[in-house]
Amino acid sequence: MEITWRPDKVSEITLHDQIVSYFRERISSGDWPVGTRLPAERRLSEQMDVNRSTVSHVMDELKSHGIIESHGSKGTYVANNTWSLMNQPNWHQHIKSSLYMPNHKIIQKINHYEFQEGIIRLGTGELSPELFPRDLMQKMLIKAATEVNSLNYEEGLGQYELRSLICKYLVNHGIKAVPDQVLITSGSLQSLHLLSIGLLQRGSTVYIEAPSYLKSLYTFQSAGMLLQGIGMTDEGLDVQMLRRIFKKRETNLLYTIPTFHNPTGIMSSDENRKALMEVVEDRQIPVIEDDAYRELWLDTPPPLPLKSRDNNGNVIYIGTLSKTFAPGIRLGWVVGPQPVVERLGDIKMQIDYGTSSLSQIVAKEWFREGHFEVYRSTLRESLLSRRTILIGSINRFMSSFGTYNLPGGGFYVWFTFYEKVDTQKLFEEALAANVLLNVGSIYDFRDNNSIRLSYAYASEKDLVGGIERLARIIPKCIMN
Amino acid sequence: MEITWRPDKVSEITLHDQIVSYFRERISSGDWPVGTRLPAERRLSEQMDVNRSTVSHVMDELKSHGIIESHGSKGTYVANNTWSLMNQPNWHQHIKSSLYMPNHKIIQKINHYEFQEGIIRLGTGELSPELFPRDLMQKMLIKAATEVNSLNYEEGLGQYELRSLICKYLVNHGIKAVPDQVLITSGSLQSLHLLSIGLLQRGSTVYIEAPSYLKSLYTFQSAGMLLQGIGMTDEGLDVQMLRRIFKKRETNLLYTIPTFHNPTGIMSSDENRKALMEVVEDRQIPVIEDDAYRELWLDTPPPLPLKSRDNNGNVIYIGTLSKTFAPGIRLGWVVGPQPVVERLGDIKMQIDYGTSSLSQIVAKEWFREGHFEVYRSTLRESLLSRRTILIGSINRFMSSFGTYNLPGGGFYVWFTFYEKVDTQKLFEEALAANVLLNVGSIYDFRDNNSIRLSYAYASEKDLVGGIERLARIIPKCIMN
Repeated sequence: MEITWRPDKVSEITLHDQIVSYFRERISSGDWPVGTRLPAERRLSEQMDVNRSTVSHVMDELKSHGIIESHGSKGTYVANNTWSLMNQPNWHQHIKSSLYMPNHKIIQKINHYEFQEGIIRLGTGELSPELFPRDLMQKMLIKAATEVNSLNYEEGLGQYELRSLICKYLVNHGIKAVPDQVLITSGSLQSLHLLSIGLLQRGSTVYIEAPSYLKSLYTFQSAGMLLQGIGMTDEGLDVQMLRRIFKKRETNLLYTIPTFHNPTGIMSSDENRKALMEVVEDRQIPVIEDDAYRELWLDTPPPLPLKSRDNNGNVIYIGTLSKTFAPGIRLGWVVGPQPVVERLGDIKMQIDYGTSSLSQIVAKEWFREGHFEVYRSTLRESLLSRRTILIGSINRFMSSFGTYNLPGGGFYVWFTFYEKVDTQKLFEEALAANVLLNVGSIYDFRDNNSIRLSYAYASEKDLVGGIERLARIIPKCIMN
Repeated sequence: MEITWRPDKVSEITLHDQIVSYFRERISSGDWPVGTRLPAERRLSEQMDVNRSTVSHVMDELKSHGIIESHGSKGTYVANNTWSLMNQPNWHQHIKSSLYMPNHKIIQKINHYEFQEGIIRLGTGELSPELFPRDLMQKMLIKAATEVNSLNYEEGLGQYELRSLICKYLVNHGIKAVPDQVLITSGSLQSLHLLSIGLLQRGSTVYIEAPSYLKSLYTFQSAGMLLQGIGMTDEGLDVQMLRRIFKKRETNLLYTIPTFHNPTGIMSSDENRKALMEVVEDRQIPVIEDDAYRELWLDTPPPLPLKSRDNNGNVIYIGTLSKTFAPGIRLGWVVGPQPVVERLGDIKMQIDYGTSSLSQIVAKEWFREGHFEVYRSTLRESLLSRRTILIGSINRFMSSFGTYNLPGGGFYVWFTFYEKVDTQKLFEEALAANVLLNVGSIYDFRDNNSIRLSYAYASEKDLVGGIERLARIIPKCIMN
């Protein structure tokens, strides 16, 4: 718990009384329900910038009233909310027994510290604000302003014109689809959430690459499914293993990122894709293909998506504007067999009544005018330069510690240490030095002794500075 | 199933072959999976605008190949997808065994027909496009254009400034909250979805007014909770009954719409609210207060919300811009004890990574400039006039069939028939006459012999025309 409140030192009310009032308010409002663990007195005195003895007196008073209780070395807890006549629901109990798992602890930390000032984000999977096409966006919004006639509830699948434009766009990637096979979502994470509650039964298994971005989310586990890893080669997912694992028409499913895999950056080869589709068609395996990074190639264009090779409706294809344009627009799409898309649309009408019309209007403009075609070359140039800078810094400062892939696109460099590194400690130590890391363990079923570095987000200066700082920390975290 | 495709009558390919190809494509792409029921031959020939005999020949051919099967009077079904070498996953099975319930059948129909042209929507709970403040929205978007610096992933709780502005706004309604007690959501439906998966355990009961808007949704049931009704009086929820039902600190919860209740329009009195809060505090009952309609009063301002009387953190308050401004912006808020709000924010980061930044930027502008304060008087005038028109039409055409409340605000007139009416039939007959109705049964635990009429959506002309048309249909649906 972080207390940002501080007593007013020039007030006529004593510091003691101010702090008691503050605690009273927090506890009786339910912000600190019974069971909340309080920071240690030393930390409290730092956080509120008062003497330790003042804090001690307050705590003693609260204890004597039974409001808080010391459990020895386990810390001090809110034990009672007499002030509220014990009238509060037991929120902690409610939260604990509810359905969804909390986010991964490290992900929670990342979500939190991302918004701290002065932090260098070395692992962040989105384009830097520097790369945001501000002028283009302004033009689009002004255009949108003339187009907004009303903002009523929308069709569950999303605006028809937007779905048509996405079909047209997908033809460039070998995918034939009609608007009825397209659902507009509020980004890929929502697409996955919809699939988890609308297409899978409790207890079924979602097979994913090990490591995989999906392992850092609890989307499927919270809905009662299991995740299971399938190994990868340099060519992509291990198809031999896939063949051994899957029987015909089982209730399980494969989730894969064949193009600029997150987090490893691996590009699945054309042969690998062919082989994968053969197994999938033979065993009738439903596949979710996550194709978020396709447009972000730097050296050569990637092979066609699995969906373009899908003659029998095995593949559910998910795409997004988050990686190529802006995550904040929260716009993605699912392309699949019509009953699947209809089903997901029906559920979307039960969880948020459709995606923001403003986002849909801007997305229409984006596709209609082919803005990406123009923006693409500037973006690629910047990403190329950033990749060079990150790789240069790794070579300069970190080459003695480990090895990495050279990604042909996407955002990520997957760095694996030679010696065993305590990556949990590395995360904490880096954070203390204002460097935010995405450690590999959050993406994997076992400790993979790796970290995911991203050249997309931090400024060019911070990429160099961040890697330099990190290199100084690594030796402290090598395990013997 | 509605087939909108038609064969090309001037093509060199025979109609027969074109239709076979079309069926082949639909079936092998998975759009019509095994188990799909096909329209009757007569309907097929109408839909595709070809002779019935042509359709018959095609069907015979498909049957001889085992692709489709006739089950006598039950209809004709896709039985096989040989064309795809049987390689498709069994999507229907996947859908059937997955977690979420499909939407209520009538809600599905309403969701569908709302977007049909020429339909008069007599029950729709949103402002008419006519009432949309277009010029204001244009101004806001142009202003937003200058403000968009980047659109990166956002903090889980939503933009800090927006949360602060909402706190400031809520002070007008007697609610004291700090930004850490506010979560921005993509509308109230998402707020409910988050609550269902983040705060309640499977098997617990959500008590609601009978009838209630919430009964038409399966949000809580899909997450494994039960709904249970509590009666209403003219003063609001039956507090006596509440007192009998709830024990201390149970895992159950109360969801209530005290202000311009949906669907009945009932306004809970000041005394009723006081009595309700007493029970709630005494029994430590968690309460969700849905306050979507507060600003839409026409005669006198409503009593203060429950949340303003909540000294102990019992009440989770949900609000939205959907009813006062525009549903398409998809913006709502949850105000509650900090651990609850934090928990919901953490889950939001697992289901869609936050609400559209575009929507948040426009919402900031809306609150910051106090646009509603200006728009309010125009809106109230229009709604007053529309209420007068709807009530006038009911008095003129429908007064012999039943009785209604006179709502002091909100959108709804709850009309209850004197004689037993087959409301399912009424819905269908009205639909056939291009009038879309929200029948009362979708909101209730039993047939309540009522319909929800709305003066907010249909044009003034359509309000009159729709009620007139409806009045001609009602006699056909009275049961003897």
